Amino acid sequence: MIRQAVIMAGGLGSRLKERTVSMPKGFIEIGGVPIIKQSIKKLISTGVEEIIIGTGHCADWFERLEGNIRLVHNARYAETGSMGTLACCAPFVKGDFLLLESDLIYDAAGLRVLVNERHKNAALASGPTNSGDEVYLEADADGFLLRQSKNRADICALAGELVGISRLTPAALEAMVSYLDAHSADMPNMEYEAALAAVSLRTENRMPVFVRKIERYLWREIDCEAHLVAAQESVYPYIQEAESLLSVRRETLLNPGPATTADSVKYAQVCADICPREAEFGDVMDWISTELSLFAGKGRIETALFGGSGTAADEVMISSCIPENGKLLIIDNGSYGERFAKIASAYGLNFDVYKSSSFLPLDVDRVKQTALDGMYTHFAIVYHETTTGLLNPAPELCRFCHEHGITTIVDAVSAFAAIPIDMDRDGFDFMASTSNKNIQGMAGVAFVFCRKDALEKLKTYPMRNYYLNLWDQYAYFKKARQMRFTPPVQTLYALRQAIIEAKLETIAGRYARYSACWEILVHTIKRLNLNMLVPEEAQSRLITAIIEPDSPKYRFDDLHDRARDAGFTIYPGKLSAAATFRIANIGDIRPEEMSGFTLLLERYIRTL
Amino acid sequence: MIRQAVIMAGGLGSRLKERTVSMPKGFIEIGGVPIIKQSIKKLISTGVEEIIIGTGHCADWFERLEGNIRLVHNARYAETGSMGTLACCAPFVKGDFLLLESDLIYDAAGLRVLVNERHKNAALASGPTNSGDEVYLEADADGFLLRQSKNRADICALAGELVGISRLTPAALEAMVSYLDAHSADMPNMEYEAALAAVSLRTENRMPVFVRKIERYLWREIDCEAHLVAAQESVYPYIQEAESLLSVRRETLLNPGPATTADSVKYAQVCADICPREAEFGDVMDWISTELSLFAGKGRIETALFGGSGTAADEVMISSCIPENGKLLIIDNGSYGERFAKIASAYGLNFDVYKSSSFLPLDVDRVKQTALDGMYTHFAIVYHETTTGLLNPAPELCRFCHEHGITTIVDAVSAFAAIPIDMDRDGFDFMASTSNKNIQGMAGVAFVFCRKDALEKLKTYPMRNYYLNLWDQYAYFKKARQMRFTPPVQTLYALRQAIIEAKLETIAGRYARYSACWEILVHTIKRLNLNMLVPEEAQSRLITAIIEPDSPKYRFDDLHDRARDAGFTIYPGKLSAAATFRIANIGDIRPEEMSGFTLLLERYIRTL
Repeated sequence: MIRQAVIMAGGLGSRLKERTVSMPKGFIEIGGVPIIKQSIKKLISTGVEEIIIGTGHCADWFERLEGNIRLVHNARYAETGSMGTLACCAPFVKGDFLLLESDLIYDAAGLRVLVNERHKNAALASGPTNSGDEVYLEADADGFLLRQSKNRADICALAGELVGISRLTPAALEAMVSYLDAHSADMPNMEYEAALAAVSLRTENRMPVFVRKIERYLWREIDCEAHLVAAQESVYPYIQEAESLLSVRRETLLNPGPATTADSVKYAQVCADICPREAEFGDVMDWISTELSLFAGKGRIETALFGGSGTAADEVMISSCIPENGKLLIIDNGSYGERFAKIASAYGLNFDVYKSSSFLPLDVDRVKQTALDGMYTHFAIVYHETTTGLLNPAPELCRFCHEHGITTIVDAVSAFAAIPIDMDRDGFDFMASTSNKNIQGMAGVAFVFCRKDALEKLKTYPMRNYYLNLWDQYAYFKKARQMRFTPPVQTLYALRQAIIEAKLETIAGRYARYSACWEILVHTIKRLNLNMLVPEEAQSRLITAIIEPDSPKYRFDDLHDRARDAGFTIYPGKLSAAATFRIANIGDIRPEEMSGFTLLLERYIRTL
Repeated sequence: MIRQAVIMAGGLGSRLKERTVSMPKGFIEIGGVPIIKQSIKKLISTGVEEIIIGTGHCADWFERLEGNIRLVHNARYAETGSMGTLACCAPFVKGDFLLLESDLIYDAAGLRVLVNERHKNAALASGPTNSGDEVYLEADADGFLLRQSKNRADICALAGELVGISRLTPAALEAMVSYLDAHSADMPNMEYEAALAAVSLRTENRMPVFVRKIERYLWREIDCEAHLVAAQESVYPYIQEAESLLSVRRETLLNPGPATTADSVKYAQVCADICPREAEFGDVMDWISTELSLFAGKGRIETALFGGSGTAADEVMISSCIPENGKLLIIDNGSYGERFAKIASAYGLNFDVYKSSSFLPLDVDRVKQTALDGMYTHFAIVYHETTTGLLNPAPELCRFCHEHGITTIVDAVSAFAAIPIDMDRDGFDFMASTSNKNIQGMAGVAFVFCRKDALEKLKTYPMRNYYLNLWDQYAYFKKARQMRFTPPVQTLYALRQAIIEAKLETIAGRYARYSACWEILVHTIKRLNLNMLVPEEAQSRLITAIIEPDSPKYRFDDLHDRARDAGFTIYPGKLSAAATFRIANIGDIRPEEMSGFTLLLERYIRTL
């Protein structure tokens, strides 16, 4: 796993003349997008969490880039070569990393190949480009870099041309920086290629760099006007075609989860096999737990991961969080509240159900009074009822419970990572969600967030089951950095990628995008005189239950099949009380896709 | 999802002269392998379950091909064109399928692109090949096929060259067959391209065929000697390179599961998003359940799938299969037997534990006597103790229990799909396994196999939990063809691919391969004077617990890290009684990989 990338972008790009007098080379546009932006996008899609950019010339341009980017300025950029810029970045490198030049266009396949490379230090090379600015490489019999030169005559057996994308260990980087330090006098403007070849060649403390050649690799460095023209005409279109061969047919899921996912999340499942008890995988799970908890609030929140669905997470909470003498109040105003009760019943808990309309807002005062009157120790509520799209006032009720010493259990399966949540602020002690809803990962991982003080109490609670026990799952992971039982490894890698992308969008940004989709939908619903089950002000803006049109011609299956043929999946209602169908606007969907669906919906309604 | 492919292989290949006088064109070798074999391998890796080959000339050659292949002979091959051969295959086509010519080499990316194509009828096209035998295509403004011809002059705007790989619906095929029938007099030797263009062009009952062009697609048809030479020199090597860019770093997992998986299984996770409540996904789960049950025996066996690990499957059985007044005997001779007891304890069941040595064979007679003396109604045993590699005599004991009316519960997590099992013959009523062991899929799916008569009894048993309830899970799926709760969708697609490949290898073939790996390991163990924990005759031949060398220099971590650097993952022991490390030989591993590991082991042992 490679978690960081370094892009060396300090150069003057003087051969590109007026284009780069007041702009770094990386901002040259091809296909309407600066090439460094294209590079950053590819790095993020490959699973890179942080990108370090070594800047110099026109450094302020880089501040406008989006992504988890750390800018490191090389103040002496005019005198140093790229190795000077790389040295400035070195202190921020924490593990194996990808090293890139800033002025490249390339097929993302090269990144994947380096991530999959067994040699921990490796430089990507290609067959002949005839670009006129080649860095030629020579390798030894085992394929390790011996020499690099722009002069073909310096090279005996040609191993390939240096692309400008490598993977390196921190140790190799350190050796390169030492080499620079040792030669600061005789080679003040050293390029990184020279240091790379030097540490790979030397006999003492050798850091062999493997030359990973792809004969027909699609890439170009943009060093001058001629390169730019050639790249635009005869490289860029083929990069786009090559990358497009991997794109997965777009199905826009408007069902209430599993939600639509990005191709990058899909491909994150494809990775080298690993035993989940390896320390490396412990790091992955630890990172996931920590990053997820940051979406759940600012307080001391612990995350327990389970292999299972959202219901499994609900069962974890109900079966693990209530002591022998506890008394539980369950709010039931939809299928998921009802499910809480079924679980409590299976375990023979002492509980009552507060039943309320599945589409009208809860009577907050009555719920509060009931919670107090019944002397409940625990309170369970579904934040967002997936059944109808009804958003319950869980924060107000849970805060109230908290003030009265009642522990709170919240199903936030379809609220988490869209509706802003802060467990401390909202009074949530335990909260469940899953990998396949708003976090936009794949189905198979359930998580339970716990406020630390509430969690600690579980230590002595009765163990009512085994696989879904919260305390054991938490305590074992803390101790061993392993799950108690085999976790869904590949689904966790997908979740990691989904979290990387959620952090970039931010939860607020995600909710804004979802809301924009919802507004398009609601606009159409009103225009078509369709009715929504839940009053607008009580809706989550994530799932909308639409009352079926009052026409004898209407058949859900017709609408479903038309939508499916056009790439949209919709979902029937779940209530016996009212005939509805449901449209969810969660997942990796764009407003224009919702517009496409509403057009289809409109056409169908007009046929009735 | 595309489940079938048809390869038209009836042709004479007369332009290849003496090469194909007594051999079909598809058996021409490039890179040492017949091109049709390469094609079949790519199709299987893309998720095709069955390949129909329409034969003609030298039909007997095809009988030697491996795979789930149905041969359909076109007796009139000498008079018909390829459409005649395709018509012979038509009755066996059950759904959307891939249609291929037999004499192609191609980049597997083309299959992926067609599988991901939204248009249900689509023909792959490429940019210019200059092969001299091009079929030129013309398309309308929407990209649908209008015309095909070998004569460039017949074509107005060139849409591309026909590759000879298409995806079609059964309806389009039927239309093509009808077209052939209607023109049998005027076009007796019709090629399929003509029929394809005809049904795409006509106005009535039109079956538009989308032209899916990949400008730089790597492929060649081998029609003559010149093609063959050109293909060998300037196409085949680049196909190999392009495909290799997708290969995932090989990590050989010698830990006792999750096991090493094939790249095709990894990539099966990458598929269009789908709502698991769609009928199409119900078909996938149904197919998986049925095919898995065939590995569990010949009787009436039902499979229930769960999202979770092997332990979840064990908990399903223990919590769901024992009635109120049941009394359970658990055999504990390892961690997994112990886990049975922990689960039974969490649910407050009436049970006893029969404790036995974790490395010596069970005393069968004593177990039998205990089962009878204690008046047990249920008996639970681990078939293969992953802790040590000890194979318990589960069939003998379960058959005995059966004869005495005792219901049997078997953890076959690491036995299933390697050790041959027949639940009826072996007396297993309930049996648990998981997707990530010998079936060679990804972690995240647990399954419980049930003999139908034993399963039916559960209907009235107490519901002790919710997510892991066996009867509910089974009954709901039977009724709705959906899982009760969101299943791990992508892991199920991977499991589907793993099953396709397991069927090809057969369970007997798999166990033979595993055993060959085990023999290599044991040979080295003996040569190095290392000791095994379990007597050889009681071993499963799947996992070997090796007693740690009696040297002060020995450290498991040293051995582990050396192995990991070389691409092998090994695993510590789990017994407090004896210091061991464990080597598993399950998963997608080859004997030569085990040889590589034993060499490394030997080198390490020599340093002690």
